[in-house]
Amino acid sequence: MKTEAAILVELNKPLEVVSLGLPALRAGQALVEIAYSGVCGTQVNEWLGKKGEDKWLPHCMGHEATGSVLEVGPGVTKVKASDKVVLSWLKGSGAEAGGAVYDWEGRRVNAGGVTTFQRHAVVSENRLSRLPEGLPMDVATMLGCAAPTGMGAVINVLRVRPGDAIAVFGTGGVGLNSLMAAAFSGATTIIGIDPSPFRRTLAKMYGATHVVDPAAGDPLEQIRAIVPQGVDVAVEASGLAEVMAAAMQATRAQGGRAVVVGNARAGATVSVDAAIFNQGKSLLGTWGGDSEPDRDFPRFGRLLGAGRFPVRDLLSKPYKLSEATDALQALADGVTGRPLLDMSLA
Amino acid sequence: MKTEAAILVELNKPLEVVSLGLPALRAGQALVEIAYSGVCGTQVNEWLGKKGEDKWLPHCMGHEATGSVLEVGPGVTKVKASDKVVLSWLKGSGAEAGGAVYDWEGRRVNAGGVTTFQRHAVVSENRLSRLPEGLPMDVATMLGCAAPTGMGAVINVLRVRPGDAIAVFGTGGVGLNSLMAAAFSGATTIIGIDPSPFRRTLAKMYGATHVVDPAAGDPLEQIRAIVPQGVDVAVEASGLAEVMAAAMQATRAQGGRAVVVGNARAGATVSVDAAIFNQGKSLLGTWGGDSEPDRDFPRFGRLLGAGRFPVRDLLSKPYKLSEATDALQALADGVTGRPLLDMSLA
Ligand SMILES: [Zn+2]
Ligand SMILES: [Zn+2]
Repeated sequence: MKTEAAILVELNKPLEVVSLGLPALRAGQALVEIAYSGVCGTQVNEWLGKKGEDKWLPHCMGHEATGSVLEVGPGVTKVKASDKVVLSWLKGSGAEAGGAVYDWEGRRVNAGGVTTFQRHAVVSENRLSRLPEGLPMDVATMLGCAAPTGMGAVINVLRVRPGDAIAVFGTGGVGLNSLMAAAFSGATTIIGIDPSPFRRTLAKMYGATHVVDPAAGDPLEQIRAIVPQGVDVAVEASGLAEVMAAAMQATRAQGGRAVVVGNARAGATVSVDAAIFNQGKSLLGTWGGDSEPDRDFPRFGRLLGAGRFPVRDLLSKPYKLSEATDALQALADGVTGRPLLDMSLA
Repeated sequence: MKTEAAILVELNKPLEVVSLGLPALRAGQALVEIAYSGVCGTQVNEWLGKKGEDKWLPHCMGHEATGSVLEVGPGVTKVKASDKVVLSWLKGSGAEAGGAVYDWEGRRVNAGGVTTFQRHAVVSENRLSRLPEGLPMDVATMLGCAAPTGMGAVINVLRVRPGDAIAVFGTGGVGLNSLMAAAFSGATTIIGIDPSPFRRTLAKMYGATHVVDPAAGDPLEQIRAIVPQGVDVAVEASGLAEVMAAAMQATRAQGGRAVVVGNARAGATVSVDAAIFNQGKSLLGTWGGDSEPDRDFPRFGRLLGAGRFPVRDLLSKPYKLSEATDALQALADGVTGRPLLDMSLA
């Protein structure tokens, strides 16, 4: 059996849309027909080589999606044929079956335990979760990456509480999920910081009580004008090292915490004044918002499905699979919310 | 009334032992006769000017001690005359009465809400706690700083759990308290890292299962030889910026946490690879181990008094007040445990 995929053959070049031969399912794997794939900053960084040398080329792309199970390999019990599922890079229960290798006219094309810029994918059981009841499949793509990362940062890592003041640096797909989670958590001052006017507009739709344009003056001063003692907590969702330091500085002394969810560029260094730690401020890392799919996806699905925010508007107008490079470019340019590849489009 | 004090008149010069006139008690203040004062890295940094310019000179020194209340000012209810007390820089319940100003033959000598390198001190009510029942006054000095900082880092901030692996960088008074707290918390791998052979010997007495000499080879490699995946948590108690970065690196991916309790030098910068946050490692700051005197001092007193560790041996042979500079030098040279000034010595 063959499928169509948008694969990365060379860094900084458009993805190539090719026909791939699917491998036979091994134990712990499932064959999934993808419905929608999200596109996130991780893929932009891969595409532009910002994560450094890429020894896996050519390879498949993408790590958040929804779809339907067509077939399962030996030993798979978590899902069965015809189940609607969420695909995520985060590992949940079930077998870890390793990566898949596809055939491109005799060439090997590498793939991890989950890839999604393709009509069909061979996926490890532990990257699959049942689609939450009633959640549309386009919105549910965010459960694969943007929601566990952005909502998890707020709910699991920072444990934001009613009355807190929070700053979110970078209000793309992940940052917008952080804003919504902050609003659900009862934060009363919610500041979105982004150089893109489009993204600042989105920020206001998704819970921000204030927005800050870093080009309009020192963002730390702008934040202090809103919360003089500094915010209780901050989310860094831009991936820029200097913004990581700024997010920490923006928090209050004696307990301020900032968490990094943005994807760092290879070789970038975060530099902060050593004395800031003696002030009792912390800079936290996280692996996917400390989210555990089995525990957290139903919860995040309830938040996305609650109707409090127009979550579908956060998604871009759908791109065709053949337009995957355009989706990456739009994301890099900051002129879109969460880009979506819709596999039903020819 | 007059008292004797060892005060800092000029950076990098020996403390001067002088006779000071005591001010009248204001509301919220108490007059305390000091029994023992601890000496910690904060005072070494003040003495050597490592915290930068000092605009308070000349000033009193010290922030952990035990003593007896002689008299209380208006409104003080937390302690009364003849109570035995712990003096700490950490603020608990009670009035914040601001600093005291002493008279030195017509010159002003500044002091904060608590100072301790002196036979009598005017102290803010909120820096005083009742001495825990049965705890010797020399050992109890550690409740003023070393115990809440070192034990609090482990118990309040890191919340070490049975079976954890922990590394403690710098095994002076604060680090030794962290080691003891880690042992009480059930950590099963407890690594003390210190360049001083004397301090490594102390580390083994206070709970370390392994010690590492950073001069004997890359300390991170030595730690990985003990715990290949990295330690679960780490305490940075040296105050050196490069050690703060190393402490973070020594922890495991996906959840490793290091906390800084060492006093940073003025102007020092911590530089870490931005990608380390995406691995899910965190570098935490803390204000006194997140300790609250009213809640935590009784607990830390029980740990110090439990008899599991020879806590008195952690303290130096007592110095006279007139030898305060020698105590600072010994601490700077790493040839002592927690130096103690014994006011009963002439
Ligand atoms: Zn992603
Ligand atoms: Zn201290």
